[in-house]
Amino acid sequence: MSKLIDYAEVQKHTSRESCWVILYGQVWDVTNFLPNHPGGANIILKLAGKDATEEYDPIHPPGTLEENLPKSACIGPINPTTLPQPVKAAKDVGPEPDTQVEVPLAAMLNLDDIEAAATKKMSKKGWAYYYSAADDLVSKHFNNTVYRQILLRPRVFVNCKDCDLSTSFLGHKLDIPIFVSPAAMARLAHPDGEWGIAQACKKFHTMQMISNNASMTPEQIVKDAGPGQVFGWQLYVQTERKKSEDMLARVNKLDAIKFICLTLDAPVPGKREDDERGKFIVEDTSQAIKDAGGKELKGGGGIGQSLFFGTDPTLTWTETLPWLKKHTNKPIILKGLQCHEDAYIAAQHTPQVQGIILSNHGGRAADTAPPAVHTLLEIRKYCPEVFGKLDVVVDGGIKRGTDVVKALALGAKAVGIGRGALFGLGAGGIEGVERVLEILRDETATAARLLGVAKVTELGPLHINTRAVERDVYDGPANLPGIGGAMKGLWVQAKL
Amino acid sequence: MSKLIDYAEVQKHTSRESCWVILYGQVWDVTNFLPNHPGGANIILKLAGKDATEEYDPIHPPGTLEENLPKSACIGPINPTTLPQPVKAAKDVGPEPDTQVEVPLAAMLNLDDIEAAATKKMSKKGWAYYYSAADDLVSKHFNNTVYRQILLRPRVFVNCKDCDLSTSFLGHKLDIPIFVSPAAMARLAHPDGEWGIAQACKKFHTMQMISNNASMTPEQIVKDAGPGQVFGWQLYVQTERKKSEDMLARVNKLDAIKFICLTLDAPVPGKREDDERGKFIVEDTSQAIKDAGGKELKGGGGIGQSLFFGTDPTLTWTETLPWLKKHTNKPIILKGLQCHEDAYIAAQHTPQVQGIILSNHGGRAADTAPPAVHTLLEIRKYCPEVFGKLDVVVDGGIKRGTDVVKALALGAKAVGIGRGALFGLGAGGIEGVERVLEILRDETATAARLLGVAKVTELGPLHINTRAVERDVYDGPANLPGIGGAMKGLWVQAKL
Amino acid sequence: MSKLIDYAEVQKHTSRESCWVILYGQVWDVTNFLPNHPGGANIILKLAGKDATEEYDPIHPPGTLEENLPKSACIGPINPTTLPQPVKAAKDVGPEPDTQVEVPLAAMLNLDDIEAAATKKMSKKGWAYYYSAADDLVSKHFNNTVYRQILLRPRVFVNCKDCDLSTSFLGHKLDIPIFVSPAAMARLAHPDGEWGIAQACKKFHTMQMISNNASMTPEQIVKDAGPGQVFGWQLYVQTERKKSEDMLARVNKLDAIKFICLTLDAPVPGKREDDERGKFIVEDTSQAIKDAGGKELKGGGGIGQSLFFGTDPTLTWTETLPWLKKHTNKPIILKGLQCHEDAYIAAQHTPQVQGIILSNHGGRAADTAPPAVHTLLEIRKYCPEVFGKLDVVVDGGIKRGTDVVKALALGAKAVGIGRGALFGLGAGGIEGVERVLEILRDETATAARLLGVAKVTELGPLHINTRAVERDVYDGPANLPGIGGAMKGLWVQAKL
Amino acid sequence: MSKLIDYAEVQKHTSRESCWVILYGQVWDVTNFLPNHPGGANIILKLAGKDATEEYDPIHPPGTLEENLPKSACIGPINPTTLPQPVKAAKDVGPEPDTQVEVPLAAMLNLDDIEAAATKKMSKKGWAYYYSAADDLVSKHFNNTVYRQILLRPRVFVNCKDCDLSTSFLGHKLDIPIFVSPAAMARLAHPDGEWGIAQACKKFHTMQMISNNASMTPEQIVKDAGPGQVFGWQLYVQTERKKSEDMLARVNKLDAIKFICLTLDAPVPGKREDDERGKFIVEDTSQAIKDAGGKELKGGGGIGQSLFFGTDPTLTWTETLPWLKKHTNKPIILKGLQCHEDAYIAAQHTPQVQGIILSNHGGRAADTAPPAVHTLLEIRKYCPEVFGKLDVVVDGGIKRGTDVVKALALGAKAVGIGRGALFGLGAGGIEGVERVLEILRDETATAARLLGVAKVTELGPLHINTRAVERDVYDGPANLPGIGGAMKGLWVQAKL
Repeated sequence: MSKLIDYAEVQKHTSRESCWVILYGQVWDVTNFLPNHPGGANIILKLAGKDATEEYDPIHPPGTLEENLPKSACIGPINPTTLPQPVKAAKDVGPEPDTQVEVPLAAMLNLDDIEAAATKKMSKKGWAYYYSAADDLVSKHFNNTVYRQILLRPRVFVNCKDCDLSTSFLGHKLDIPIFVSPAAMARLAHPDGEWGIAQACKKFHTMQMISNNASMTPEQIVKDAGPGQVFGWQLYVQTERKKSEDMLARVNKLDAIKFICLTLDAPVPGKREDDERGKFIVEDTSQAIKDAGGKELKGGGGIGQSLFFGTDPTLTWTETLPWLKKHTNKPIILKGLQCHEDAYIAAQHTPQVQGIILSNHGGRAADTAPPAVHTLLEIRKYCPEVFGKLDVVVDGGIKRGTDVVKALALGAKAVGIGRGALFGLGAGGIEGVERVLEILRDETATAARLLGVAKVTELGPLHINTRAVERDVYDGPANLPGIGGAMKGLWVQAKL
Repeated sequence: MSKLIDYAEVQKHTSRESCWVILYGQVWDVTNFLPNHPGGANIILKLAGKDATEEYDPIHPPGTLEENLPKSACIGPINPTTLPQPVKAAKDVGPEPDTQVEVPLAAMLNLDDIEAAATKKMSKKGWAYYYSAADDLVSKHFNNTVYRQILLRPRVFVNCKDCDLSTSFLGHKLDIPIFVSPAAMARLAHPDGEWGIAQACKKFHTMQMISNNASMTPEQIVKDAGPGQVFGWQLYVQTERKKSEDMLARVNKLDAIKFICLTLDAPVPGKREDDERGKFIVEDTSQAIKDAGGKELKGGGGIGQSLFFGTDPTLTWTETLPWLKKHTNKPIILKGLQCHEDAYIAAQHTPQVQGIILSNHGGRAADTAPPAVHTLLEIRKYCPEVFGKLDVVVDGGIKRGTDVVKALALGAKAVGIGRGALFGLGAGGIEGVERVLEILRDETATAARLLGVAKVTELGPLHINTRAVERDVYDGPANLPGIGGAMKGLWVQAKL
Repeated sequence: MSKLIDYAEVQKHTSRESCWVILYGQVWDVTNFLPNHPGGANIILKLAGKDATEEYDPIHPPGTLEENLPKSACIGPINPTTLPQPVKAAKDVGPEPDTQVEVPLAAMLNLDDIEAAATKKMSKKGWAYYYSAADDLVSKHFNNTVYRQILLRPRVFVNCKDCDLSTSFLGHKLDIPIFVSPAAMARLAHPDGEWGIAQACKKFHTMQMISNNASMTPEQIVKDAGPGQVFGWQLYVQTERKKSEDMLARVNKLDAIKFICLTLDAPVPGKREDDERGKFIVEDTSQAIKDAGGKELKGGGGIGQSLFFGTDPTLTWTETLPWLKKHTNKPIILKGLQCHEDAYIAAQHTPQVQGIILSNHGGRAADTAPPAVHTLLEIRKYCPEVFGKLDVVVDGGIKRGTDVVKALALGAKAVGIGRGALFGLGAGGIEGVERVLEILRDETATAARLLGVAKVTELGPLHINTRAVERDVYDGPANLPGIGGAMKGLWVQAKL
Repeated sequence: MSKLIDYAEVQKHTSRESCWVILYGQVWDVTNFLPNHPGGANIILKLAGKDATEEYDPIHPPGTLEENLPKSACIGPINPTTLPQPVKAAKDVGPEPDTQVEVPLAAMLNLDDIEAAATKKMSKKGWAYYYSAADDLVSKHFNNTVYRQILLRPRVFVNCKDCDLSTSFLGHKLDIPIFVSPAAMARLAHPDGEWGIAQACKKFHTMQMISNNASMTPEQIVKDAGPGQVFGWQLYVQTERKKSEDMLARVNKLDAIKFICLTLDAPVPGKREDDERGKFIVEDTSQAIKDAGGKELKGGGGIGQSLFFGTDPTLTWTETLPWLKKHTNKPIILKGLQCHEDAYIAAQHTPQVQGIILSNHGGRAADTAPPAVHTLLEIRKYCPEVFGKLDVVVDGGIKRGTDVVKALALGAKAVGIGRGALFGLGAGGIEGVERVLEILRDETATAARLLGVAKVTELGPLHINTRAVERDVYDGPANLPGIGGAMKGLWVQAKL
């Protein structure tokens, strides 16, 4: 066992020239790694000379250190008796922790209750990362309120004793039409992280898409998969393609992962101010806006931007899909389509592409981007044949079972939840995620039965009144009178 | 007289194996009844070993004990000197009681004043049961605000000295076009209960529909009926059909009951969170979420769900109406139609079916279901002949006389109030219900006179401007261009 | 001089059998007058045995006592030393008086400032009478917000050095296109009352319509009229026609009164709850809801309802106009038209009828009645020829000069203010009314110049964008497909 | 050096007959100048006998004294020892200064943060001048919210690694499509004033239009211009044309000024109440509403109205443009067009007129005037050829990069900010303006990349969904059925 290192010694290494941090009781020299850190050097320099474990742990899957640093970078164990008191986490942003008696999960009746409970229990930084969305949160809120604009059309005198909630995606049966969308950094909510979400999905026999930025490895997440449990793996293609190829090679080996979900709606990071403000809330303001080297940090920041580091913004239909074909045989689904034109193009790429997720990234990419309901209605209007060629699912804004049946009635095969699952995890770990799925399942069943369908797959546009939404749906470019009919809306890139 | 039983003895019987409760001073052994309780066993187990009278009384009509339990189940009278102090009812949910000076009924100028007064006087549990609606209360609020979207078109220079407010329903004359819809559990508001509502209706010579879940027996409710007073009796068909058949047999004998109101809009219970939360608000939180047997209670609950116990969700046009014909000669009206297609089908079932109530169950079933005004406009648009074949009435959201005249102008023969009558009862017993009817009658007369009609039966679509509503009314399934005109909207189930 | 009467003696006469009140220091026996009081007997009985001067004075024009009571009813002077301390007026309803330093009129920049200042200075009862409107104040607020829905279309490069604001009505020139609509009970705001409003109108050379329920006599109001000053006199036809005929005879003699304004929009009183609540706010609640005879007072009340006493609700085109012709040679204008059909009919009655006021009575009659802007747009849509036959003016909701130019652009020759003038009076007497007219004049001039017109009479529909309003304007009866085009909207009573 | 003058002596000269003020330590006799002061005599009389430097300095460019007063008017230096303590500025209107720790510029993430910071640091008078807009601020707010009504239509699988943000105006290249609109009185925010704004524009290589009412001379503002830096100079034509001609002669000599921006949207001042209220907030209320001569000041006032003094409201297409041609060879752009008709006429005046700014003067002229987005859509609808003939830019309401791309997608070549630059100056001087430009630049780049364009000049109506706005855009005069199609909207003045 190596000699213990005093904290005073560590504190001498706080510059770009020599930068040490303490992680899990070990002192690491990360000087050479600084320029390669996906989140940028500054984020490390702010922690130089300190114990970075609390900041590092929930956002890095196991193995990250070992993969990225040579063994020699580990200098040795810290002398714990020399460490100062742990700094309190009061520098985080978000709501104040609540000291009231804890509400039991069973008494949380809806997803707002769940979010409120998670907000009380989570760190401010984690809350800010989950809660945040682009700019003024217009799309985030619209994702939800657009469902309130749609009215149900219940039928009477229909036997609705039972309602079959099962659906399928890419041929895999799901017991409920609700799945977990790729959502990063689950361990910010709870130590069970993405593995915990997987346990809840197993119980309800539904699908989970694993975020490219999960806080656990894919192997960890799927290790306790049940029979027939369905996972997808989300890919953000890296500028350094080799990294993506290595990752695909790992994923190819995991049978539980049935498809690759290529995310397209965030080639550059949106501006998530709630998340970014965290950077400026520190104990010593005078120091806060400078990096360890003394250079002032300007604008941006937060967990969201760090995660985008290395993402390739140059993807195209003609280059990326063929490259992907070379590196995996798993089917591809495309995530983040927001207009019918792209859905139309995607349908030209079967059989490699087998599904699409209509999504505006939970309102976290371009603010004022349309909700998935608009894109569903655009596809119905201009190119309904897409529904026959691809499995179409949606995410964003789902809070109620009535939202679920409305999306299904418009042609979605299932709906994804992101924040819902993460806040469930924050509210109660695995049981919290289960409670979220249980609430949505029960509400969906009630809504479907009141609509008079025996199976959710029977739901169609006859069951809903979408007039209030339809009049806002894209109707072709403004004032271009020469273009009419279906062609008016269809704007397929010439270079396709 | 049997020997007095000590409270200490009763408290020993609190399990599924032996469960005693005190009711009206008598100790009952309800162990064998537990699995048969319409509200589920848990609700009884929570009261095991205690005096349950306060909880039991307002929601069970007289005779319930006798009908459901053998004489032997009555063990004997409790020794009152051994009883603890009555537990205070502070565990209920809802607004805090107000200690201000009581406002006289005459100073309550509108239905909001009435509701505010009732809210102050009622138990929190009763308030929560009445106030609650499904999910986010979208339909409950829309039921009311949709009337604000309609503008009146007053005419001038018309003799409006008098205005005849009378209307008819199934051939029975009503002095005012406002009736009381079936609304359960009136004794939660006031000991006079549904009988009290009947007295007020007698005074105004209008119609009352008796809830299947009334807190009094039909015989009690109609016993003081005036000459020509009109009652309907609401039927929730029970899975155990024999129960419904027995009940119909009783009702058939009551001449004051002129028709059967078959309720169709709630084959499964909606999710009424204000009501359900009551279950989790108890003095001892650690115990609250378990039943007496120690099993945790999860989700749901409340009075609303209990009442649905036993309701048959398998009703159909082809099976249920013929069955009903066998068990009653009274005419049938159907309650809870929410789209023109079902109104169209109902009109095919004359003469057995003679009327329909357009209703979304006060927003208590499917949230975001359309208000009755939408359904009226749908019928006008797609199948106006329905108005000639059936007596159409509506309920939900009526707060003002202007609301009443708008519904009549669109073709309704009368409008029903549910919460309005119950809150009137809560605010002042019989006189409170009378005040509610008086307010609505006077407001209706004022509105009709300002519109320039001598009789409310003259009201028609020329008297109102519905453009702001019409553009939201169902216009056929979204983006199905092949279907047009009247056919576009008419979606009659193939299996009819 | 008669013997002084002790207060103790007066207090003995508080019943229907013997009812005395003190007015202006004299004791009157009003027992025989009780059944004839326009406001009902109860309102007097509540003041029986007391000094009623403070309640009586601001709402009765001089001469009222002498006209209605025989000399013998005056018993003699009260002995002032026996009177109790004057009761403080704290029983009134409305906002609390403000004790801040008074704001100078010049610092009140808009009509909201004026209303706020008047609210602070006026009695609560007076405020409630002015502020109140029917039911939920929907029409009152819509009267104003509908103007915000219309956009201006300013033109540039137009010489707008001067702008001629003058207009005409029935051939009489007005220097500004803003007049004072008939508004009752001006002395509730200020002792100068309607005479004070006349002085302000003289200064701005504009028109005033005298309310049938003015708190001063027509003779008093017009006595200081300037040269060419224009008055109209509002007529509510009384059931006791003789009263109206006598009044017309008086008015016929006054040259300053150029026309009769026959009010049609309030044949029965609307329900003005702010006004009515005043009745129930008294010092001794137990007594408040009974009249002096011990009978409980139920519902309604307030100044508004009292004023309607005696109004004839049987007026018709065919009976009333010929009767009126017999009793006056002055031209007639009709107030309160709210749909194009009635405007169309009015235009058939030239030359007796020469103008119309589109008005919903300030939102005080039928709540959810359309604002005058809707009626203007209806007329433009269905029968624009009306503008050529009649002088059309509007009132209701005017708060800004931009509102004025919008009404003019749609065809109104001028706009009336009601509450604006009354609150001006309350805020600062004559100078307050002048300030109101000055603010609106200056704002109107600014708006007209920015639109690029040299005279307000040049304003037309090209200067405004009304799309947001037009889509809500009446489009014919809902779903009556057989009726189309102009006929769709035109619903002329068969009995015309 | 002249003899020092005692403050007591100065204080004797406070009337129209003899009026002295102290400016920059010198005593001036301004008696003869009183009738010529652009802001009116009153504003000087209020400061008569006092040190006026604090009021005078930020709103008068250097040289103003020398240009307007003869040398003899300078009486001599004040004796500083006789001056009273400087009066504190607490009489200003606006938010209370904040005493919290200052937020660093980098932590201001958006333009609202910037405005909040400036509001805390600026004088209340300066804040009120910047913040204020006409009447009820309807147009000011609509300018911003109309952008929220437009949805983006992001495309996926497009290489968006880089995005070229450059655009051009009148042939001059700008690195970002965001420029500074003419905005008066920059030194109210910061001593660096308009020169400071110029430094920030230099850094981002973008355009600045210099306000006619700048608080610095054009020579001062452009003196440190970078190579290729583009300025425009705003002209309010003065009634006293000679003044405008002299000013044009000065401007003609400045090469950095590339064009003249003739402002047309404010021939008369709007009513900016926040600004005007400042006049009435003084220490001694009794005196506040009188001028020094004892005459009461009525209505209006504020900085805004003062600045309009002398502006010529008689400009016309036929007179003003030829006059302008005689006095400058620089190209002309017209500012303040608000309807397509005027844009159409402007396009007839090439080549003298080369560009237009669609603007409602930041909502400061006619309230309820349309936002520039409406005018863009009007031009697209009725006369899209205008975009080919003129460089069209917009200002008003820009707060986000998404707003910028939406305006560009509709045909604008760039967008202007006014308050944004001024509040940036208030928040942090030159660096504050830079931070504003940096925020908008980064947000614009993010939005453009997420839309999938490689250059902002590729943006077009296909990238946005404007349906929610289009239905409110002018559709021709209301109910004039005879006029249709493009002609319906086109209302070109006959006198053109």
